[in-house]
Amino acid sequence: MSCISGLGEDEVNSFFESSPPLKNMEEIVQKLNAFIHLLNSSAGGRRRRRIVCVTSGGTTVPLEQRCVRYIDNFSSGNRGAASTENFVKAGYAVIFLFRRGTCQPYSRSLPDDPFLDCFQFPDNTNIQVNASHVEAVKMAVMDQQAAVAEARLLKLPFTTIYEYLQMLRLIATALKDVGPCSMFYLAAAVSDFYVPWKSMTEHKIESGSGPLDIRLAQVPKMLSFLRTYWAPKAFCISFKLETDSKILIEKATKALRKYKVHAVVANELSTRKEEVVVVSSSGNVVVRCDSEKPESIVEDNLIRLIVDRHSTYIKEFST
Amino acid sequence: MSCISGLGEDEVNSFFESSPPLKNMEEIVQKLNAFIHLLNSSAGGRRRRRIVCVTSGGTTVPLEQRCVRYIDNFSSGNRGAASTENFVKAGYAVIFLFRRGTCQPYSRSLPDDPFLDCFQFPDNTNIQVNASHVEAVKMAVMDQQAAVAEARLLKLPFTTIYEYLQMLRLIATALKDVGPCSMFYLAAAVSDFYVPWKSMTEHKIESGSGPLDIRLAQVPKMLSFLRTYWAPKAFCISFKLETDSKILIEKATKALRKYKVHAVVANELSTRKEEVVVVSSSGNVVVRCDSEKPESIVEDNLIRLIVDRHSTYIKEFST
Repeated sequence: MSCISGLGEDEVNSFFESSPPLKNMEEIVQKLNAFIHLLNSSAGGRRRRRIVCVTSGGTTVPLEQRCVRYIDNFSSGNRGAASTENFVKAGYAVIFLFRRGTCQPYSRSLPDDPFLDCFQFPDNTNIQVNASHVEAVKMAVMDQQAAVAEARLLKLPFTTIYEYLQMLRLIATALKDVGPCSMFYLAAAVSDFYVPWKSMTEHKIESGSGPLDIRLAQVPKMLSFLRTYWAPKAFCISFKLETDSKILIEKATKALRKYKVHAVVANELSTRKEEVVVVSSSGNVVVRCDSEKPESIVEDNLIRLIVDRHSTYIKEFST
Repeated sequence: MSCISGLGEDEVNSFFESSPPLKNMEEIVQKLNAFIHLLNSSAGGRRRRRIVCVTSGGTTVPLEQRCVRYIDNFSSGNRGAASTENFVKAGYAVIFLFRRGTCQPYSRSLPDDPFLDCFQFPDNTNIQVNASHVEAVKMAVMDQQAAVAEARLLKLPFTTIYEYLQMLRLIATALKDVGPCSMFYLAAAVSDFYVPWKSMTEHKIESGSGPLDIRLAQVPKMLSFLRTYWAPKAFCISFKLETDSKILIEKATKALRKYKVHAVVANELSTRKEEVVVVSSSGNVVVRCDSEKPESIVEDNLIRLIVDRHSTYIKEFST
C-alpha cells in the first residue's frame, strides 16, 4: 500500500502500534466529545460555528523507556497561546493541544514568577493584586475562565511525541464531521527524529565510559495522513521554523507542495516575533505587527489573514 | 597537571573556555553579593548563619548553536523545591539554583493551572481565592515573599548545562569565605553527555534524509572540582538517580568515594517520593515520609537528617 500512495502507511502504522498507549485516553475522548457537543448545540439556528485545533510547544523524544533523558524542541508556546486568544476573539472554538509547562492563552503578560510578583495579603486574610499587574491577572483569570466556561476553549496537554500524535489523531477523528468549518493550525514544534520505542533501552543509559553514540530514526510525516485520511476536509495551516533565512521560503514552499496544506507560516528564529511569511498557492504574504501600536503582536494580523482565508475556503467548499 | 591530580583539569578548563559566556553575569554576581552581605549583617552577634545552595531541575544540552533541538534530563524540581522550604524552616539562607519552568518553593500545592482554578473576580474588580485553594495560594504568596524579603531565599534560574556550571562556580566562589557553614545540596539532574560548543552545527539540523547520528562527549565531572578547588570547606551532598534499584546503592557508594562528598542521596525513579537512602561513610540510612501524617513528604525527614549531619560537621571543623 505504501508503494502506491507514497504516504508511508507502513511506517505510520508501525509508529502507532509501537507507541506506549495514552494513559488517559478515555478522559480525553470524553472531554473532546463534550466540547464538540456543546459547540453544536450552542450554534443553534445560526451559522455553523467554526472550530480550530491549535497545537503549541515542542514534543519530547524519550531516549530511555523509564525516561530520564529526552530530546526536546525549543518552543515557548507563545505563538500558539497568542493565536488561540485571537481565534477565540474571532468567534472560533479552540482546542488548544499544548506542551505541559509552555505559555498559556491569556497569560502572556504575567511576569515569570507571578506568585512572587503579582499578589499581596496585606491583612493576612484578603488577597490583593499589585497595581502594576492588575490587567495581566484579570486577563489570565477572567478572560481565560470566560473562554473555558463558554466552550470556546478546551486545553489538552501533551509531553512526548507519542502523546502528541495520538491526541492529534483523536482530535482529527472527532472533528471529521465538522468538515470545512474545522481548521488545524499546527504551530507545535514536532520532533523530526526519535528512537523507536522497541529499540529503546529500558533503563537509564550508563555514563562513565567514553562518548555516547545515538542513532535517531525519522518520525513518519503525519501531516500527509492528517490531510488525506484523518481530516481531509479541514482547512490546514502548518509552520516552518528555520534559523537560516536563506533557505526558509524555499523549505516552506516545498512543504506546501509536499503536504498539500492550505498555507505554511514561515518563521525565522531570530525575527519570529516581528514578522512571518504566509506561503500559499496564491503567493507569499509578509505579516508584521503594527509598529505604531506598542501592544500589537504579529498574531493579531496573522490570525486576521488566516480567518479570511478560512472564510473563502468554506464558501468555495459549499459552492 | 591532569595526569597528577586525576581530576581532568584540561577537560574542565576547555569546557569553560569554549562555553558561551553567561549573558547576565554581572547581575547574578550583584545579587549573590547583596544576598551574602545581608546574611552576614543579619547574623549580627548571634552564631554564624548557615547557607545552602540547592540545585534543582534538569540541565539542557543544545544540539545546535542557534538552538532549536536539545537533550534534556527529566526532573520536575519537586525535590529541590521541597528541600528549600525545609532548609529555610531550619534557619538556613538558601540560594535556589533552578531550571526555568520547574517546581518552585512554596508552590507545590498549587494546581497545574492556577490562574484557571484558584481565583475569581466576582464583581469584576476585586479578586478572590477559591476556598479549596486558599492555603496553597497563601503559602505561594506569603511564605515565599517572607523568605525572599528576609534574605532567606535567593532564586537564580538556568537552562543549559553551560549556564548551570558557570553559575555553580560563581556561587561556590562567592561562598568560599563562609567555609564549613556553607552547604551544596546538588539535587539538579545534570547532563552526563553534551555536544562541545565548537563542534556544534550553527543552524538547525536538516531533516529529510534518513537517520541522524549524534556523537555526544562526556561532560567533565565538576563535583571533584567543587570539592577540591571551588569550595573545599563546604559540606557537600550529591544525588544519584537510577531506574534500576539493583545497581542504585552500589553506584551511590562509588560516587561517595570518587567525589569525596559527605553524603549521596540515592533515589530510584519510581519510589523517589516515598523513600531515599542517604549513603555516607557512617553507613546507609533509609529515609521515608511519615506514613501516619498525610501531609508528610520525604524531604521533611531528609532535611532534618542532613541538617544534623551538617551541625556535626561544623563542630568537628572548629575543634
